[in-house]
Amino acid sequence: MKLQSGLALHVRRLAGEDLASLVREGGARDAALQWRAGPVALDARHQRLDTDAMAALLAAAQEAGFDAARKALFAGDIVNPTEGRPALHAALRDPSELADRGMAARILEARTRTAAFAQACAAPDALDGHPVRRIVNIGIGGSDLGPRLVYDAMKAFRREGVELRFVSNLDPADLEDALEGAMPETTLICLTSKSFTTSETLMNGRAAKAWLVEKLGEAGANARLAAATAAPDKAEAFGVDPARIFPFEEGVGGRYSFWSAAGLCLEIALGPEVFAKILKGARGIDTHFLTAPAEENLPLAKALIDVWNRAGRGLLARCVAAYSSRLALLPAYLQQLEMESLGKPVRLDGSPLPAHSGGQLVWGGKGSDIQHSFFQWLHQGVDEVPVDFIAVKALYTSGDERAKALGANLVAQTAALLDGHDGTGEMASHKTLPGGRASSVITLDALDPEGLGALIAVHEHKVFCEGLVYGLNPFDQWGVELGKVLATDLLNGNHSRFDGASLDLARTFKL
Amino acid sequence: MKLQSGLALHVRRLAGEDLASLVREGGARDAALQWRAGPVALDARHQRLDTDAMAALLAAAQEAGFDAARKALFAGDIVNPTEGRPALHAALRDPSELADRGMAARILEARTRTAAFAQACAAPDALDGHPVRRIVNIGIGGSDLGPRLVYDAMKAFRREGVELRFVSNLDPADLEDALEGAMPETTLICLTSKSFTTSETLMNGRAAKAWLVEKLGEAGANARLAAATAAPDKAEAFGVDPARIFPFEEGVGGRYSFWSAAGLCLEIALGPEVFAKILKGARGIDTHFLTAPAEENLPLAKALIDVWNRAGRGLLARCVAAYSSRLALLPAYLQQLEMESLGKPVRLDGSPLPAHSGGQLVWGGKGSDIQHSFFQWLHQGVDEVPVDFIAVKALYTSGDERAKALGANLVAQTAALLDGHDGTGEMASHKTLPGGRASSVITLDALDPEGLGALIAVHEHKVFCEGLVYGLNPFDQWGVELGKVLATDLLNGNHSRFDGASLDLARTFKL
Repeated sequence: MKLQSGLALHVRRLAGEDLASLVREGGARDAALQWRAGPVALDARHQRLDTDAMAALLAAAQEAGFDAARKALFAGDIVNPTEGRPALHAALRDPSELADRGMAARILEARTRTAAFAQACAAPDALDGHPVRRIVNIGIGGSDLGPRLVYDAMKAFRREGVELRFVSNLDPADLEDALEGAMPETTLICLTSKSFTTSETLMNGRAAKAWLVEKLGEAGANARLAAATAAPDKAEAFGVDPARIFPFEEGVGGRYSFWSAAGLCLEIALGPEVFAKILKGARGIDTHFLTAPAEENLPLAKALIDVWNRAGRGLLARCVAAYSSRLALLPAYLQQLEMESLGKPVRLDGSPLPAHSGGQLVWGGKGSDIQHSFFQWLHQGVDEVPVDFIAVKALYTSGDERAKALGANLVAQTAALLDGHDGTGEMASHKTLPGGRASSVITLDALDPEGLGALIAVHEHKVFCEGLVYGLNPFDQWGVELGKVLATDLLNGNHSRFDGASLDLARTFKL
Repeated sequence: MKLQSGLALHVRRLAGEDLASLVREGGARDAALQWRAGPVALDARHQRLDTDAMAALLAAAQEAGFDAARKALFAGDIVNPTEGRPALHAALRDPSELADRGMAARILEARTRTAAFAQACAAPDALDGHPVRRIVNIGIGGSDLGPRLVYDAMKAFRREGVELRFVSNLDPADLEDALEGAMPETTLICLTSKSFTTSETLMNGRAAKAWLVEKLGEAGANARLAAATAAPDKAEAFGVDPARIFPFEEGVGGRYSFWSAAGLCLEIALGPEVFAKILKGARGIDTHFLTAPAEENLPLAKALIDVWNRAGRGLLARCVAAYSSRLALLPAYLQQLEMESLGKPVRLDGSPLPAHSGGQLVWGGKGSDIQHSFFQWLHQGVDEVPVDFIAVKALYTSGDERAKALGANLVAQTAALLDGHDGTGEMASHKTLPGGRASSVITLDALDPEGLGALIAVHEHKVFCEGLVYGLNPFDQWGVELGKVLATDLLNGNHSRFDGASLDLARTFKL
């Protein structure tokens, strides 16, 4: 409430402004609404913000303890108190700041082991004398979306001769598609599950193993299983050889996990050098986030802009428009990262979050496709939803005329949202765009391993800062547990607590 | 405003109810909130609705002229007055009700032509003595998402030996991926653009043609181009042989177009028999929609539920959760269909739409994956967003244990949203789910061609009904024009109307 009342004055003051005029004023506002960190630039001049509002937001972050909080994150303090854990994703890039030196050593050792295994997988006889031609990652949620995003984005950096596919869904079609065209002899199955109790992953894992066993027998099948998990004993019980079990720490959250052994499939498919460069890119942002003053801190700035729109202006949603085919999965990745982290009912002290706070509804797609889809709604719909445009400079300036046009479309959309226009002639009211709609542009210098790592790390730290300002825990996810319990009830024929509509449905599905 | 004031009484009355108790009351409410049309069932018992509220919604639809409106749609009247056009998507399934018999004849003739061409493409010498092994559809928006959804969903019904890929984006990576592994000799390029002026499609079309020309020369390239368009002269000027230009009517909207020649790539890849079954499934819903009384009319009911949540309860967004891997693209398809159709600023008479009306923010993903992603936010986030669960009965009852578990997860999620639970022990407040959150379940008997056609037609007619109740035109899309003009300005070096931030970005991208 205090956060929102502190912003209310600025919101009211700016609500009446003509945004297009405000933007054109330039001056100090121009400088105050642009940031850079390594290969990432953030331009928020098209936001309904000015220097005073930005100062109020920065004050809110300082009051929430920004300086101490970022240090605590990197030191490995218990920043996830409801689960009693640190949050180690930054330490996976470089554990230098970790207070627990034993943990730091384990992280480095784990990296050495996965890199060696990834290297070994490149040998022509890696699998019982056969090469690895197909890697199938079986995981869901954080154990799926991260590797999927990175593999897509890094298409130009993949190792030759090996293809990575993903299985997450219980629909048998999912595994079927992932195994299409694969030979058991040359297929490596990566089971990725922090708890190694995720039912989707275990069920698909058993089905995949059965596919291997049918052709190669039990021993041949087990030789083609690898696991990334924080529960190595369970992976061993499943049949995975301890030599191919790659543990990661309990303090690595699923949605922050591909930097760990949970990125094993990636490290094999891209090679350990490329994988290391992704971590290096993220580390560059880590250093910036940890050391840059608040007013120059890009992840903090992005967090505060999103807080402004959500808690200040009361806007529920945010659209992520990635203008690069290779970043088509970025909106889904950020959706998970943000909505699972910030979709919380209470503050750390257990008090309820007020209305218009916590995580935004994050959604989007790839541009310019979405201009031919839901952008109609963004331009002319009744409600304003701010847009984050994700740009890739090297793509648009590559000399290819199509790529140049892609960049032009991005700039044109930010301008159209800002300026709108008055319809003319017949049906003028139908052709009028109101304008005055906010957007930000996040420009990546190039979509290379370092750039990708940096882009993701920016968003991780942004989410951390939002959690800080709202006073919530961005690292737990208690809300997903009930559904798991109820699904198990249904599968066990325990129908006692369901309503009539649910039971009718269960009967229809023969549950 | 009248619509909303008419609903306000019911909204207030039901806002204070415990939803879980309301659902368990059963009785007349149970019957009033379930519908069936052919292979599609709709269960809305988990909505914050009762018989009186439903009656008020039905009255609003009748007052808006439901009976006359549906007849006008099928008769081919000018239901899109801002563009002076009918909306012909239902007529594409069966033009029996069209008043203009000449247009009906043209539609049937066009279907005969595409079917014959699709059949001919199955011949081993279809392309200058070579078979068709790769079809590349180049289109964007409606010319892309529809065929993409259907091709994914109909994987089990595809013709053998030919693969369909899609190019929509200006990122050169998109065309590169679509041509990967293709041989020019055995590749057919389908250019799909209603206006044949869509810049993305023309630029990618030129690049694809250049790829053919390099190996096969101009004549060989042109022999591998086909076009679906409402501007056949422009396609011919591009170099497409008139024998392979397949026109469709101006009255077919892009987002409703795959039923027409714009589905050419599909008709080739699935074969004309399967394509005809998809149309047949849609026709079944058409007949239901046109003839069923309002209170039994499933598309109308679905529309009214969405109106209730948007205009009555003031909820901005709706989540579509498709529990089938093969329907992974359904949320994106419905997002386009609904947001482009209903994201309008004014009514047909030019008066502004009030707050909390018009299209919802439609977004989602495939279950159960999304349970490990944004469902945390749906269960515990501060805001309620109603969910549409899309179920496929034949999948869950197939006997496969994974598929059964998928169905159990769906039912469990509807129950968890409804009932919530009180956290216990330490951190109880962090573990509490409020419950009382609305959802609907749309169950498809099976994901076969008829079922898919029915599912899509239900949503098309639903959108039509929402447009009717809001009094807006769901068939135009004036809001997308300004961005096109501004992009062209930038590419032509015309910088006069841009603000400083946009110009800085343009300079960065060398525009």
